Amino acid sequence: MTLQLSTELLSLRTRHPFIIARGGQSDYRTVMVKIRDGDGNEGWGEAAATRYYGETLETVQAALLTYAPLLGDDPHQLDAIERRLETALHGNAAARVAISTALHDLVGKRLGVPLWQYWGLDPAAAPRSTFTIGMDTPEILRQKVQEAAEYPILKVKLGGPNDLALLQTIRDATAKELRVDANCGWTPVHAVRMLPVLEEFGVTVLEQPVAADDLEGLAHIHRHARIPLIADESCVTSADISRLVGRVDGINIKLAKCGSLREALRMIAIARAHQMTVMVGCMIESSLGITAAAHFTPLVDIVDLDGAALLAQDPFRGAGIPGGQVTLPTAPGLGVTRR
Amino acid sequence: MTLQLSTELLSLRTRHPFIIARGGQSDYRTVMVKIRDGDGNEGWGEAAATRYYGETLETVQAALLTYAPLLGDDPHQLDAIERRLETALHGNAAARVAISTALHDLVGKRLGVPLWQYWGLDPAAAPRSTFTIGMDTPEILRQKVQEAAEYPILKVKLGGPNDLALLQTIRDATAKELRVDANCGWTPVHAVRMLPVLEEFGVTVLEQPVAADDLEGLAHIHRHARIPLIADESCVTSADISRLVGRVDGINIKLAKCGSLREALRMIAIARAHQMTVMVGCMIESSLGITAAAHFTPLVDIVDLDGAALLAQDPFRGAGIPGGQVTLPTAPGLGVTRR
Repeated sequence: MTLQLSTELLSLRTRHPFIIARGGQSDYRTVMVKIRDGDGNEGWGEAAATRYYGETLETVQAALLTYAPLLGDDPHQLDAIERRLETALHGNAAARVAISTALHDLVGKRLGVPLWQYWGLDPAAAPRSTFTIGMDTPEILRQKVQEAAEYPILKVKLGGPNDLALLQTIRDATAKELRVDANCGWTPVHAVRMLPVLEEFGVTVLEQPVAADDLEGLAHIHRHARIPLIADESCVTSADISRLVGRVDGINIKLAKCGSLREALRMIAIARAHQMTVMVGCMIESSLGITAAAHFTPLVDIVDLDGAALLAQDPFRGAGIPGGQVTLPTAPGLGVTRR
Repeated sequence: MTLQLSTELLSLRTRHPFIIARGGQSDYRTVMVKIRDGDGNEGWGEAAATRYYGETLETVQAALLTYAPLLGDDPHQLDAIERRLETALHGNAAARVAISTALHDLVGKRLGVPLWQYWGLDPAAAPRSTFTIGMDTPEILRQKVQEAAEYPILKVKLGGPNDLALLQTIRDATAKELRVDANCGWTPVHAVRMLPVLEEFGVTVLEQPVAADDLEGLAHIHRHARIPLIADESCVTSADISRLVGRVDGINIKLAKCGSLREALRMIAIARAHQMTVMVGCMIESSLGITAAAHFTPLVDIVDLDGAALLAQDPFRGAGIPGGQVTLPTAPGLGVTRR
């Protein structure tokens, strides 16, 4: 029987408006993808569209209409299916990864093993996840730091007009390890000027200080930086990695950027071959999408999978980051259930 | 229960003495590795040691003594086990890949799926395999070409003193597609001089013309070559790939060099990220070892898996290359049985 794809809209709300250098909001909508095989098994995935990467809720739904008839009848044909989808319609990574996730969930369920086990991984090797403090007023920042009491590492969103005050407010409120993500918000000159400030505040990682296509800017900052420099917006798929070698210390892999779980694993292999640090990040999404990425965290160095932890209510139970520790489900496939 | 490793010596004999630029013989001995879990499942692998890569039958047996107590009790922990082995004792790739193969066979059997399916691959995507004509007298060469009647593509071993005569003998005996492997036997200057000759003889691929560490020699030949140049001895593991980018067109992956099935898959991902051609080769080994490599041929461009087809008698049934076409078993795991 042909694999059947159906969708469901998910309405998500963050506890606080989630603001980064490019703006932000409280209300997010994602698309849940369900793929059913002829034996009554069902695999789930989530598409978290972001305008920055060219997708909206509507483009995801439209792309899924193109992809759905191409699934064939064998969910184990992961390689051929992913090639077919990408050939039929490029880009649309969030839509494609929802299908990739649902197929992997289905395969894991059919084989009776959780994804981490399917991939031969050791869940105990998963690093701790950061928890992100988005931009806000000093008062709310202090409240957020308090609410994040259980998380040992905080990621601070900079790249706006009040970076110093924001960093000072958070540092005054906590002695925890801090990592910084400027989301393309700085110039290379400003970033180099910020480096000693970040060091003074004990920041341990700097993510994407400058524009995505400013590879020379990244290289310039890299030459001056004593803390690891990670490319996020500059690294979308495996094709981007080789030109980043020597210009940054590592890459941030996100499923909604790279379009497939197999592509994420390939990116890890490629980054490792270049001795790069590997980070995995996420969008604002439910535990459904987060869990897909969580299953391969035993292979990475830096985890930032707080997308569901930032929500006021999460429609699913799956991988979690209680106390910052990534916990992986032991049920077959993704191991995600509805709350 | 701790995974139990046992071994068995395999005595192999090629139909003809198998002679390449470094010499050759008719009698080969490999080590069969068997790993048994607590449920009575058994996975098999084969270690084909070659002195060129620093291994003999004896070093394989000795290395296996070091590796056997490190397997633990869970064959699904493929990543952690492979890391433990490599940390405990570097190198010894043939010994390690026999374990990696046996673990994958075991995992496939436990899950009830053939390895190609476990990896999400489509067996129909496997390219045709070459069949190798080793160095020999004109008379035997003609006989070998006749014996290879079923194979549409021949790989010719050059790098000796009679290359031109040898190539002429084979071309006179057949109009088939020819590929050439010089096994490090040429200098860069000689290789460039040979290029128009190879073209004239309709050779379509040139493998490893010069010494393994002569990367500038490879680059020099690459600048002059109109046919794809493939690195074999110059490319042992994933760590070798980045320095070959721009110097060759592709890499030849062999399990006995890279030490693990997971490493082979990583090498494919890395080569693809650099737009390189991917070839998979083998040693003189039985269908047990050949089948492990055959399972990932749907991901490669060039297949040279004739190691068992060159034998007078093959102790196993598994993947085959009848008429040059790679055929993959459908039984769980490797799908290899004793004859």
